[in-house]
Amino acid sequence: MKQSQWITEVFEDQTAFSVRYSGRLLDERSDFQRIEIYDTDALGRVLLLNGCFMVTEKDAYIYHEMLVHPAMAVLPGASKALVIGGGDGGAVTELVKYPTMESITLCEIDPMVVRSCMEHLPGISSGLGDPRVNVIHEDGAAFVKNSAETYDLVLVDSTDPVGPGKALFEVSFFESIRDRLEDHGAAVLQTESPIFMSEVFSSAVKNLGSVFGFDRATPYFATIPCYPGGLWSFTFCSASVDPVRDCPSDSAASLPVGLRYYDLSVHRAAFAMPGFVRAML
Amino acid sequence: MKQSQWITEVFEDQTAFSVRYSGRLLDERSDFQRIEIYDTDALGRVLLLNGCFMVTEKDAYIYHEMLVHPAMAVLPGASKALVIGGGDGGAVTELVKYPTMESITLCEIDPMVVRSCMEHLPGISSGLGDPRVNVIHEDGAAFVKNSAETYDLVLVDSTDPVGPGKALFEVSFFESIRDRLEDHGAAVLQTESPIFMSEVFSSAVKNLGSVFGFDRATPYFATIPCYPGGLWSFTFCSASVDPVRDCPSDSAASLPVGLRYYDLSVHRAAFAMPGFVRAML
Repeated sequence: MKQSQWITEVFEDQTAFSVRYSGRLLDERSDFQRIEIYDTDALGRVLLLNGCFMVTEKDAYIYHEMLVHPAMAVLPGASKALVIGGGDGGAVTELVKYPTMESITLCEIDPMVVRSCMEHLPGISSGLGDPRVNVIHEDGAAFVKNSAETYDLVLVDSTDPVGPGKALFEVSFFESIRDRLEDHGAAVLQTESPIFMSEVFSSAVKNLGSVFGFDRATPYFATIPCYPGGLWSFTFCSASVDPVRDCPSDSAASLPVGLRYYDLSVHRAAFAMPGFVRAML
Repeated sequence: MKQSQWITEVFEDQTAFSVRYSGRLLDERSDFQRIEIYDTDALGRVLLLNGCFMVTEKDAYIYHEMLVHPAMAVLPGASKALVIGGGDGGAVTELVKYPTMESITLCEIDPMVVRSCMEHLPGISSGLGDPRVNVIHEDGAAFVKNSAETYDLVLVDSTDPVGPGKALFEVSFFESIRDRLEDHGAAVLQTESPIFMSEVFSSAVKNLGSVFGFDRATPYFATIPCYPGGLWSFTFCSASVDPVRDCPSDSAASLPVGLRYYDLSVHRAAFAMPGFVRAML
């Protein structure tokens, strides 16, 4: 294969995932990271940050639906949300599907990510144009630490814990997230792969448990084809809402129409924990 | 990266998965295929057939547990099993964990695969040494067509539908499988990835439905990190047993001890079907 026609993400110098591309749309360095966008036949248009696949048109809906809808299903009437990271706009695009949602703040440190995704990934970022959305470009950890606002829902849509994403895996950040939640509110954080990043995963879940309380930080899972290991985790945190016990019946739920991955059977299934994952927590 | 130190599986000339290896243990051509075995830091020892990752020590248990135990959970007392393909012995190794199992026939076309895995992948293939196991080297499709035996459980642990694996995706083979089952029996087939091989997946499930009866061929899912797309499917087929409705309660099941992925909550979760998969069936 001609190396020049392939994009390759190398993971810990041991494994690599490559995609053939037909066109390079963007390759720039922002103040924070390298940003690349390509057209590919296999995965549609793809975004890489610092050489890591972030979203692809083929499978971004899996990640974004699973970040947003499990929490929204157990927070009926949630009206005020904060998204930390998530500069591609995919999480916001899922949130604006709820008519109850009145205010969505996206705190993404890197304005060039937002601009690039609005230009090149309109299907994923379209929600950013919704009038209920306010985009601010600040350090997410500093923002939640210094803010006095509270939210029904806080989503942490971070990169891996390197570079600008590192602060979003620290205990002090988890404490700030907790302090930004309404009593009835919930937070969901992407917490990496229990297979290929098992130490980051298990320490994130344990630290969230120490901040939110034992049995108040519950990991759940989805398969994200373009992420290392495929099996990906999110962790649901709430002082008052249980994502399994409080899952509504099919008839009682009011999900947006047109979802492609999530429904309530997927919701219930996502919280089943394979034995090897349970053993590491 | 030095190409010579990496093993790469290229999928449809569009995506590729690579692993760095520390040693090459085997690279030979049998009458049927190229067989390679390597030592890797990331995935342990790995087996490739015709350049495709088949099993790795790191994650083989996910595939083999999910091929075997969902059916065994709903077939209490099953005593006679046939495995088509599966020359690495991983499926057999899971089956011999059941004391009720009296006779296990492994029909693997390629004796060099069995020999190589017994030598280099003893942790995966160990069940092949059990006295209840009979290994025969025949074409799986011809074997089930010409046999008059019947089984409680038939497992089809095939490669992708190319080369020697092609015949194991044909309707006439599915009909032979059905004819080899006891009335109370069940078959489970690996049916590829609904993401990266969606046409093979959907036509296999539909054809199994046409052979076993509407609502009698039920796909289920697990994440296999080293397979393209990560999200992998198996299809459970039975004229009389429903893998969801007949799933026992936790207290009623008698699972082998020491499983690392499968339990009954994983069983129930595996049958949840993401919307995009339901849409293609």
